[in-house]
Amino acid sequence: MIKAGIVGGTGYTGVELLRLLVQHPQVELAAITSRTEAGTAVDAMFPSLRGRVALAFSDPASAGLARCDVVFFATPNAVAMNEARALVDRGVRIIDLSADFRIRDVAEWEKWYKATHSCPELVAEAVYGLCEVNRDAVRKARIVANPGCYPTAVQLGFLPLVEAGCVDLDHLIADAKSGVSGAGRKAVTKLLYSEASDNFAAYAVPGHRHWPEIRQGLARAAGRPVGLVFVPHLTPMVRGIHATLYARVAREVDFQGLYQKRYSGEPFVDVLPPGSHPDTRSVRAANLCRIAVHRPKESDSGGDTLVVLSVIDNLVKGASGQAVQNMNIMFGIPEAMGLNQVPLVP
Amino acid sequence: MIKAGIVGGTGYTGVELLRLLVQHPQVELAAITSRTEAGTAVDAMFPSLRGRVALAFSDPASAGLARCDVVFFATPNAVAMNEARALVDRGVRIIDLSADFRIRDVAEWEKWYKATHSCPELVAEAVYGLCEVNRDAVRKARIVANPGCYPTAVQLGFLPLVEAGCVDLDHLIADAKSGVSGAGRKAVTKLLYSEASDNFAAYAVPGHRHWPEIRQGLARAAGRPVGLVFVPHLTPMVRGIHATLYARVAREVDFQGLYQKRYSGEPFVDVLPPGSHPDTRSVRAANLCRIAVHRPKESDSGGDTLVVLSVIDNLVKGASGQAVQNMNIMFGIPEAMGLNQVPLVP
Amino acid sequence: MIKAGIVGGTGYTGVELLRLLVQHPQVELAAITSRTEAGTAVDAMFPSLRGRVALAFSDPASAGLARCDVVFFATPNAVAMNEARALVDRGVRIIDLSADFRIRDVAEWEKWYKATHSCPELVAEAVYGLCEVNRDAVRKARIVANPGCYPTAVQLGFLPLVEAGCVDLDHLIADAKSGVSGAGRKAVTKLLYSEASDNFAAYAVPGHRHWPEIRQGLARAAGRPVGLVFVPHLTPMVRGIHATLYARVAREVDFQGLYQKRYSGEPFVDVLPPGSHPDTRSVRAANLCRIAVHRPKESDSGGDTLVVLSVIDNLVKGASGQAVQNMNIMFGIPEAMGLNQVPLVP
Amino acid sequence: MIKAGIVGGTGYTGVELLRLLVQHPQVELAAITSRTEAGTAVDAMFPSLRGRVALAFSDPASAGLARCDVVFFATPNAVAMNEARALVDRGVRIIDLSADFRIRDVAEWEKWYKATHSCPELVAEAVYGLCEVNRDAVRKARIVANPGCYPTAVQLGFLPLVEAGCVDLDHLIADAKSGVSGAGRKAVTKLLYSEASDNFAAYAVPGHRHWPEIRQGLARAAGRPVGLVFVPHLTPMVRGIHATLYARVAREVDFQGLYQKRYSGEPFVDVLPPGSHPDTRSVRAANLCRIAVHRPKESDSGGDTLVVLSVIDNLVKGASGQAVQNMNIMFGIPEAMGLNQVPLVP
Repeated sequence: MIKAGIVGGTGYTGVELLRLLVQHPQVELAAITSRTEAGTAVDAMFPSLRGRVALAFSDPASAGLARCDVVFFATPNAVAMNEARALVDRGVRIIDLSADFRIRDVAEWEKWYKATHSCPELVAEAVYGLCEVNRDAVRKARIVANPGCYPTAVQLGFLPLVEAGCVDLDHLIADAKSGVSGAGRKAVTKLLYSEASDNFAAYAVPGHRHWPEIRQGLARAAGRPVGLVFVPHLTPMVRGIHATLYARVAREVDFQGLYQKRYSGEPFVDVLPPGSHPDTRSVRAANLCRIAVHRPKESDSGGDTLVVLSVIDNLVKGASGQAVQNMNIMFGIPEAMGLNQVPLVP
Repeated sequence: MIKAGIVGGTGYTGVELLRLLVQHPQVELAAITSRTEAGTAVDAMFPSLRGRVALAFSDPASAGLARCDVVFFATPNAVAMNEARALVDRGVRIIDLSADFRIRDVAEWEKWYKATHSCPELVAEAVYGLCEVNRDAVRKARIVANPGCYPTAVQLGFLPLVEAGCVDLDHLIADAKSGVSGAGRKAVTKLLYSEASDNFAAYAVPGHRHWPEIRQGLARAAGRPVGLVFVPHLTPMVRGIHATLYARVAREVDFQGLYQKRYSGEPFVDVLPPGSHPDTRSVRAANLCRIAVHRPKESDSGGDTLVVLSVIDNLVKGASGQAVQNMNIMFGIPEAMGLNQVPLVP
Repeated sequence: MIKAGIVGGTGYTGVELLRLLVQHPQVELAAITSRTEAGTAVDAMFPSLRGRVALAFSDPASAGLARCDVVFFATPNAVAMNEARALVDRGVRIIDLSADFRIRDVAEWEKWYKATHSCPELVAEAVYGLCEVNRDAVRKARIVANPGCYPTAVQLGFLPLVEAGCVDLDHLIADAKSGVSGAGRKAVTKLLYSEASDNFAAYAVPGHRHWPEIRQGLARAAGRPVGLVFVPHLTPMVRGIHATLYARVAREVDFQGLYQKRYSGEPFVDVLPPGSHPDTRSVRAANLCRIAVHRPKESDSGGDTLVVLSVIDNLVKGASGQAVQNMNIMFGIPEAMGLNQVPLVP
Repeated sequence: MIKAGIVGGTGYTGVELLRLLVQHPQVELAAITSRTEAGTAVDAMFPSLRGRVALAFSDPASAGLARCDVVFFATPNAVAMNEARALVDRGVRIIDLSADFRIRDVAEWEKWYKATHSCPELVAEAVYGLCEVNRDAVRKARIVANPGCYPTAVQLGFLPLVEAGCVDLDHLIADAKSGVSGAGRKAVTKLLYSEASDNFAAYAVPGHRHWPEIRQGLARAAGRPVGLVFVPHLTPMVRGIHATLYARVAREVDFQGLYQKRYSGEPFVDVLPPGSHPDTRSVRAANLCRIAVHRPKESDSGGDTLVVLSVIDNLVKGASGQAVQNMNIMFGIPEAMGLNQVPLVP
C-alpha cells in the first residue's frame, strides 16, 4: 500500500483527490492537512464522504507527512514551493497540483505568478506530469508538476499537429471554455451562482497564467517557439473544459490518422470517429480526454483551417485524476488503477 | 397605431415578440396565428402573458392578416415563402424572422435549407434587416429578412474590420456560443434539460446554415468574398450569444477607435472601453449588442491577431427585438420605441 | 418628479431598484450611495446599466440624501435603523428593504437579528408595506418597512384563509423554495455556482428570521396567534420563490372563490384558474404574485388539507418591485406606474 | 458471473444501469435491447460508454434474454407486464424498474396507469424491492418490483415514524422536489432546457402515480391505512430528490434515536446528526439515502410537528442502484458489491 498525504484538502482538487484515493485499491490515505480547518472531520466539511473518510484535517506541522510515500499538494500557488524541499529530502515523492513547478523559466513564472520563487532548484528537477508526453521521466521523478486544466486539454488537442510540424506554428488559436469549478472553491463575487449562472463571458483575454504553460509545452513538442492566442471563457456548468482549437494547415497529412496513431496506446485519450462533437458530459467524473478532428470544407480560403475539439473534466484529467495517474506511474502500478470510473451521464 | 399580426406565435421568437409588442406604445396586436393551437388562448399557453394578451391563437386562414399593417413571421423555415406573396400584394409589410428571404443566392439557400424556394422573386426584393447596415433600405422595404442570431452577433463584431479592410479577409474565425433557446421551442432529445445542462459541446462544425448568411453579409461589406470558419457551440444557459472573433491584422489602425466611430450613432450597439469582457448577462432581455476589442500582446507571432468579443440576447437583438427595430424604421417612428428594456441582472 | 435616493446600491435589491427606477416615468434618481464603492461609476460595476445610469456611487455623508423626496435603504440589516431618524426629521420619506422596521416587537427583533435596535420609536411608527394589506396606512407613512421575500409569498398565499378563519390556524405549514439571489450578493462559499448548482437543500429548519415576520402578519390577519412551521430551501435558479402552503380545513367554504374575491381588485396578485400550477418563470422580472388553490381529493383522511401554491420573483414583488409599489402609493401616483414589465419567458 | 440483460436501455435508468453494471465485478452484461435502436452500438448513442460497453442494442426477440440469469426492465410502464411471464417461466429472474408490479391492488394500478394489466398473477407474486423493508423476500423473489424514485425517498423518510406509530397517520405530508432526469429521457416541451431551467413549479397536485405506491408502503408498515398529501415539484437540476416530510407527533419518543436504530445496520441509509440539512449533492451518483430529523421548536402550536429531510439520487437509490442492490440480494452476493461509488462533489 502506498501511504499518501494531501496538503490543503479543502478545495475542489482536494475533495476530488479524496474521492479518487478512497476508491484506489493500493492507497492508504495517511493524512490530510489544512491550517484553517485543523481538527475538523473531513466528512463534516464534505458530507459526501461520510463513511468513506475517517480522517480529520490536521495541521501540516503535526501531520506526519514525512512518513508518507507520496504527498499531493492541492494548495494555492506559492505554497508547495516552500514545503517541497523538506519532504523531498526525507524521501517523500511529491505531486504538486498547483503551478509552482510547472514553468521551467523561473523568471517567467515570477512574472505571471507575481511572487519570488523560493525553490528554483526543484523547478529544474521537477517533471511536468503530462503523462502522454513525459511518462518515462515521471516514473523516476521525485517531484511532479501536475499540469493545469486548460493546458491539459489544449496540449493534448494540439500535440499531434505540433509534433508532426504540419500546421502553422506561429498562429495557433485556443478558444477554451471552462466550468466554474476550474476557478476553485473561493468565495468571490463573480463565482456566485447568481452571477455565473445563465451567463457566459471571456476573461483574461490580455493574458492568462496558463498561456506560458501551454506555450512551453507546445514549444517543447515543436522544438521551437510557437505563437498562441489563448482565450478562456467561463461557462455555466460545474465541471468540464471544452477547447476549440484552430490551426492552419502547413503540410497535408491524414489528420484523423495522425491523431489515432499518436494516441493509440493511451488509456485516457480517446480519438473520436470523424465528424464527432464530443460533449463535456461524456468525460464527466472520469480521467479522460476525448478529441475530434475537423476540417470544415466550407470556406472560401480553400479549407486550410483545422478545428480540433478537446474535452476533459477539469477536476479529473485536468487535475486530480491526472495526479493519480502520475502516482500510478511513479510507483510502478498499473496506470489505470483506481481510475476506471465511468463518466456520469446524465 | 400600427396593426400587427404574428404568424406562428408558439415558439420562443413568437412569445418574445409578444413581450415586446404589448409594451410598444404604437402597436396594436391584431392577430396571432397557429395552425396547431387555433382556439387556445395565448395566455393559457404562456401564463406569463396573463392580463397582457387577450387574444387567442387563430387559424391563419381566418386571422385577417391582410388587414394588418405589418405581419411578423415567427415560423419555421420554408413557411413564410409560401404566404408572403399574397400579403405583400395586399399591401401588408412583412418582417420574416425565419431564414426564407435572407440568402440572395437562391441556389445557395436551397442547398443549405434542403427545400425548393417557392418565391424567389421576393428574395430579390427583400431587404436584409441588419439595421446598422441597411437602415435606409429597410425604411422603404415591403419585406424585411430579419437576420439570424449568430449572424447578428458575428457580423456586428466583424463589420468595422471588414469594411475598413484592415484584416486578412481570407481567414476570419468566429467561435460562437449560444444559449439553448437559440435552438427553438422544439421537443427534441438533445435540447432536454437533462441533456443540455452541465454540458458543453460544439455542433455542426462541418457546416451550419448561418455560415452562408454571415459570409454573404461580410462579403457585401468587404466588396469581395471572404473566408470564414464558423464554429457554433451550445452552452447551458437560456438566452445569449457570445461570439469570440479572431482576425489577423493586415494593416495597422486604431482598432478601438475604429469600432467607436463605426457605431457612434447606433442606439443598440455599445462598444466597451478597452480591456472589457462583456458577459451575455449584460444584454439579457435587451435589444443590445455589446462589443469589446482586444489585441493580446503575449504571442510569439508578434501580436498580430485581434480578438473581438460580441454579445447579444439571441431572442432580442438576435431575433424579435431586431424585428421590432426594423418595424420602427419601416413605419418612421423612433427607432428605439418600445425597445428600452433594461437588461435583467441578475 | 419624485427625487429618489438609494442607500447601499451594490447588492441585488439595489441593482433591481435601479432597473425599475430608471424606467419609472415619475422618478428622478438623485443619488446612490455605497461606502465601499464611493466614486465608482454605477455602470462600471453593473455594465447592464451602461447608458441608463450616469451616476457614480457616492459616500452617504455627502450624497445629499436629505434633499430627496424618498430614500430607499437596500442595505444589510441594522444599517437603516441608524440613519432613518435624521432623514425622517428632514421630511424625507423612507422605504426600508431591510428587516429593521418589520417586527413590531423590538425584543423579538433583537433576538432574531442578534443586535440592539437603535431606533425603536420608529419601529412603532413604521408601516409594514405589504400593499395588499396596508395600502391605506402606506399612503401616509413616513417610513415603510418593505416585506421580506418569503413573507410576501407566504402571506399572500395564506391571507384569504387566515382572514376568513376557515383553516386550522395552529398548524400552518409553509414549504418554501427560493432562488439563490434571495441570499444576496455576498461572497460566501455555499452560494458559489459550484456549490449551489445541480443541488437542492433545506436550510435553517430550526428557525429562520422570516418566521417571526410571517407569523406576525398572519396573526394580525387572524386576530390571534397562529402556529406555523416554515421550512426554506435553496433551489438552483437565480430568481423566484415558490411557496407550497398546507392548511387543514376547519370550515367549508368555496376556496377558489374566496381567493378570487380577496384579490379581485389587486393589480399585482393573480389567482389562477382551478387546477393550475404556477411556475416561477411566469412572474420572472415582474411585480406579480400568482396563486393557485388545490384540494387534493386523494387522501384517506377525507381530503381535508388545502394546498396553496404561491410564486413571486423574490427581487421584484419580494423586494424592489414592492418597494416601488409602496412609493407609488405614498406619493399618490398610479400604483402600477413603472411596474408594467412583462415576465421574461423563456 | 451473473449473466444480465437489460430491456429498454435507451432511457436514463438504462444508461445508469449500464454505468453500474459495467463496474460490477460479478456481472457479465449479456444483452441490451431496444426496438427502435436495434443495431446501434450502445456507445454510439452514449459516448460516455466508449471503451466500456461493446454491445449493440438488439431486438428483444433475438436478444437471447432467456439465457440470462437476470433481466432488468428499464422500459416505459406497461411493457414488462407483457414480457415477464415468458422469462420467469424459463427461470430468468426479473427486476422491473417500471411500475408494472408495484401496486398489489390491480384495480388501483389500472386506474392510475390507465391500462389493463396483462399479468395480474405475477403482481401477486412480485416482491416490492425496497431492500430496507423486504430484504428477506427479495432474496427468493423471481420478480422484484423496483420502487419508484419518490416512493423510495418518502418511504425511507417516514418509515421509522410509521412503524413506531408515534405520529398522526391520517395527515402525513410529503413535499418532494425532483431533478428533471426523474421525468425520463422523453422529448417533451416542458422538459426542455429552455423551459425547465431557472424555473420551479409543482405538478400533479391533484394526483400523482407515486401517491398510491407510497401510501401502500406506508400502510403496510403501519398495519392500517394512512392519509397522505403528496406534492411533487420539478427543480432545475439533473439528479436528485429532496423530500421534506411533515408529521404531527402523536406520542413522544426519542426521534433521532428512533431513526438511528431503525437504520443502524443499513449500508445505504445514513441518518445524519441532529441539526443537519442534507443536500442532494451529498448523494449524487451514489446508492445512498441520507436523512435528517428536525423538530422546529419555534411554533405557537407547541412544536408538535416533525420535519424529516430525505435525499437520494433518483437514478441510483431511486432506480438503477436500488435495482443492483436487489440483484445482489437475490443472488446472494454482498449487498454493496458494485455500489461503492463515492458521491460526486462538486
